[in-house]
Amino acid sequence: MTVELISVGTEILLGNIVNTNAAYLAEKIAALGLSCYHQSAVGDNEERLEDALRLALSRSDIVILSGGLGPTKDDLTKEVTAKVFGKKLVEDAHTKERIQAYFDRIHTKNKITSNNWKQALTPEGAVVVDNHNGTAPGLILKGENGKTAILLPGPPNEIKPMFERDIAPYLNRLQPEGIYSKMVKVCSVGESRAETMVADIMDAQTNPTLAPYAKTGEVHFRVTAKAKDEETANALMEPMVRELYARFGDKIYTTKEHVTLEEAIVELLKEKGMTVTTAESCTGGLLAGRIMNVAGASAVYQEGYITYSNRAKEKLLGVSEETLRTYGAVSAETAAQMAEGAAKAAEADAALAVTGIAGPGGGSSEKPVGLVYVGCFVKGRVRTEEFIFTGNREKNRDYAVVRALTVLREELICL
Amino acid sequence: MTVELISVGTEILLGNIVNTNAAYLAEKIAALGLSCYHQSAVGDNEERLEDALRLALSRSDIVILSGGLGPTKDDLTKEVTAKVFGKKLVEDAHTKERIQAYFDRIHTKNKITSNNWKQALTPEGAVVVDNHNGTAPGLILKGENGKTAILLPGPPNEIKPMFERDIAPYLNRLQPEGIYSKMVKVCSVGESRAETMVADIMDAQTNPTLAPYAKTGEVHFRVTAKAKDEETANALMEPMVRELYARFGDKIYTTKEHVTLEEAIVELLKEKGMTVTTAESCTGGLLAGRIMNVAGASAVYQEGYITYSNRAKEKLLGVSEETLRTYGAVSAETAAQMAEGAAKAAEADAALAVTGIAGPGGGSSEKPVGLVYVGCFVKGRVRTEEFIFTGNREKNRDYAVVRALTVLREELICL
Repeated sequence: MTVELISVGTEILLGNIVNTNAAYLAEKIAALGLSCYHQSAVGDNEERLEDALRLALSRSDIVILSGGLGPTKDDLTKEVTAKVFGKKLVEDAHTKERIQAYFDRIHTKNKITSNNWKQALTPEGAVVVDNHNGTAPGLILKGENGKTAILLPGPPNEIKPMFERDIAPYLNRLQPEGIYSKMVKVCSVGESRAETMVADIMDAQTNPTLAPYAKTGEVHFRVTAKAKDEETANALMEPMVRELYARFGDKIYTTKEHVTLEEAIVELLKEKGMTVTTAESCTGGLLAGRIMNVAGASAVYQEGYITYSNRAKEKLLGVSEETLRTYGAVSAETAAQMAEGAAKAAEADAALAVTGIAGPGGGSSEKPVGLVYVGCFVKGRVRTEEFIFTGNREKNRDYAVVRALTVLREELICL
Repeated sequence: MTVELISVGTEILLGNIVNTNAAYLAEKIAALGLSCYHQSAVGDNEERLEDALRLALSRSDIVILSGGLGPTKDDLTKEVTAKVFGKKLVEDAHTKERIQAYFDRIHTKNKITSNNWKQALTPEGAVVVDNHNGTAPGLILKGENGKTAILLPGPPNEIKPMFERDIAPYLNRLQPEGIYSKMVKVCSVGESRAETMVADIMDAQTNPTLAPYAKTGEVHFRVTAKAKDEETANALMEPMVRELYARFGDKIYTTKEHVTLEEAIVELLKEKGMTVTTAESCTGGLLAGRIMNVAGASAVYQEGYITYSNRAKEKLLGVSEETLRTYGAVSAETAAQMAEGAAKAAEADAALAVTGIAGPGGGSSEKPVGLVYVGCFVKGRVRTEEFIFTGNREKNRDYAVVRALTVLREELICL
C-alpha cells in the first residue's frame, strides 16, 4: 500500500515555515510499514491543488493532505477534495457542536465569526475525525475507485495528536500484516558515531529493520518488524533491541515511543525520591521550561533561578565575587558554584547550572560564541562539563539544554 | 518566471531528516521575486526522479534540484537530468582538479576512491558552479526549449553558500520585474477576527496582495507588490499598510520581516530605559527563555524566578500565605503579588508573572485545565488578566507565554 503526502499552504512555498509536518508524517508512515514515494507542496490555489491531488491519487493508494482546513477563505483543501471525489459539502451537526463547545470553553474576547462555521462543512460520506486541540476536524474520504484522501489540520499541535490517536490505527487496520516497532532512544553519543556503531546491523537488516533518526543531542533508533501479531513481532525485535543494549548500554534512556529525555529524568528523580533545581544564564529558563513540560514535574521541581547578571549569580546563588572576577561568568568554576548554590537555595538534592555564550555577540578568541559550561550538583558532588557548540543563538541554547539534561542523567544513573 | 523545487533523497521520504533546504530555497526564491508554485520530494529512484523532473519542466521555467550529487551509485540526479535534457556526461577537467585539491586539503589521510571521479562528470554544455565546501559542483543546464535545470548539492553547508554566491545573482539577472513585500505583524487579535477585519481588502486585492499567516497568539499579514523597482513597490504598498494601521492600530507591533514579538518588547524596554523580570509557575521558564532568545536581552533582563511551589512563591516573591490560602496559587490575586514581588526582588521596572493549570492534571470545575492568570507590574501599577486555553499542556504554556508578552506590550505602549 502506498501513501503520498501533499502539504497545502502558501507559507510553505514562500519558505515562511519549515515543513516539519511532512517529516513527521513520513516517519510515522514508514514506521507503519507503508511505502511513500512522493511528497509535494502546493499553495492555497484551487487549480494547482486539484492537479496535485489528482496526480497523487493516480499513483498512490492513500493521499494525506495537511493544511488548508482553517476558517478563512484561503483554506481550500476540503472544498477541492470534495470536488475531486464528486461529493457535496454538508454541515456536520456533531462538528458544529464541537466548534461551539470549543468557543464556549474559551470565554476570551474572541467571538465565533461566521467563517468559523465553514469548518463544520464536511464532504458527504466522509469519516469525521475529532480535533481535540482545535476547531478543524480531520476527514477520511474513500472514493469509488478504492483511493482514499485523508485531510488533516496544519498546526503541528493538532495534526500530531490526531494522527497518533486516530489516523495511525486506521492505517494499520488496512494492512494484511501488522507492523510493530520499538524506539530505542540514545543520548550521550554523537550521530555519526552512533550510526557507525550499528553499520553492520543496518547492512544485514531484513526483518526487523533498523532506522536511525538524528535529534538535537540524541539519536533514536527505530526497530521495525513485520509479523502476523504483536507477540511474533516482539520475538523478532527482541534480539536486535538486546544487541543495541549490548552496544549502547545505559546510554539508552528509553525504549518507549513517547518518553522524552526530560520525562526519563523526572522518572529517575521520582524513583530516587530526589528533587532538582536549575540555575540558568545563557539558556535563560529553557532548561527549566523543558523539565516542567513533563506533566507532574512539580513532584521533583519546586523552584529555579534565571541569573543573567553577575549580581544575580552572587545574590541568588552565592557565587563568589572572586570566582567571577578570576575565572569570569562563563567558566567551569562559576558553573560549579551556580549548581551548588542553586541546590542550597532551593533545598534541592540536585541542581543543573548553565552558563555560556549563546551568541551572536559576546564571544572572544579565548571564549568563543558557543562555549557553554554545565555544572551538575548531585548529593554533595559537583561535576562540570565544557561544550563548544557551532550553531546560531537558538541552536546553541537548545543543545546546551539537552547536554545539561544528559549530564544530570549520567550522574543520576551512577547513584 | 516560475521556479520549482525538487528535493532528491530517500531520507526525506522516510522522515529521517526535515527538509530545511526546501524552506531555505523557497524563502530565497520569493525574496528574488520569482514565483514558486510547486515543491516536491522524491527518493533516489531513477524512474520516479525522471517523471518528477519532466513534470516540473512541463509547468515551470526553472527547476532547482537539490541532493543526489554524491559519489555513490545511489546518487542519480545528474545522470537523470542529463538524460532528460538529451546530453552526454563528459569529464570536466576543472572539476577534476578541484576535487583533487579538496582531497589534498581536507582528507590528507583518505585516498580518493574511483567513485569520487563520478563527481567530475558533467552534462555537455552545463555551466559548472564551483563548490567551495565540498566535492560536488553545482550545475546549470539550459534546454533548447528555454527551460533550465539547476542542480545543487544536498548538505545545507554546501547548498547555502553556493546559492548565495552564484545562484541568486544568476536568477536575479533573469528578471524583468521584482516582487517586494512587507510583513505587518499583529498581536492581541484572534486569527478569524483579524481575517474578518480585512475581508474587504482581500476581496479587492490585485497589486499589492494581502495574505494572513496565523501564528501562536499572533497574526502576520504579508503585503506583496510587483513593480519595476523597490521605490515603486513601496508606493504601491504604502496605502495598504496605512489601512492596516487604521484598522489594527497599536496592535501592530512591527512591519519588519524578521522582528519577533519578544524583540519588539525588548526594543520598547530599551527605548524607555526599563528593565523587566519574570516570575513563572506553569510556564516554568519558557517566558524568560523567550525574552532571552533576543540577542542583547541582557540589557533589560538580569534575573528571574521559577516558582512552582507555594513556598517558593512566598520565599522568593513575598506572596502572602493568606493570599495563597484564600484565593489559591492559581488566582488573579496571586498573579498580582507574584508580579509585584518579582519586580521588587529583582529591582526591575517591570515584571510579568504567570500562574495557571497547564494540564493534563490539576484541573477542577472551578479552576479548569487551561486557566491561566497573568500579572503585569509596570512602574507601580499592577494589571491582571485571566485566560482559559484549550490546548494540551505544551500549547497552553505556549499561549500563556505569548499572552503574557502581549499584556506587557500593551502596558508599555500606554506609558
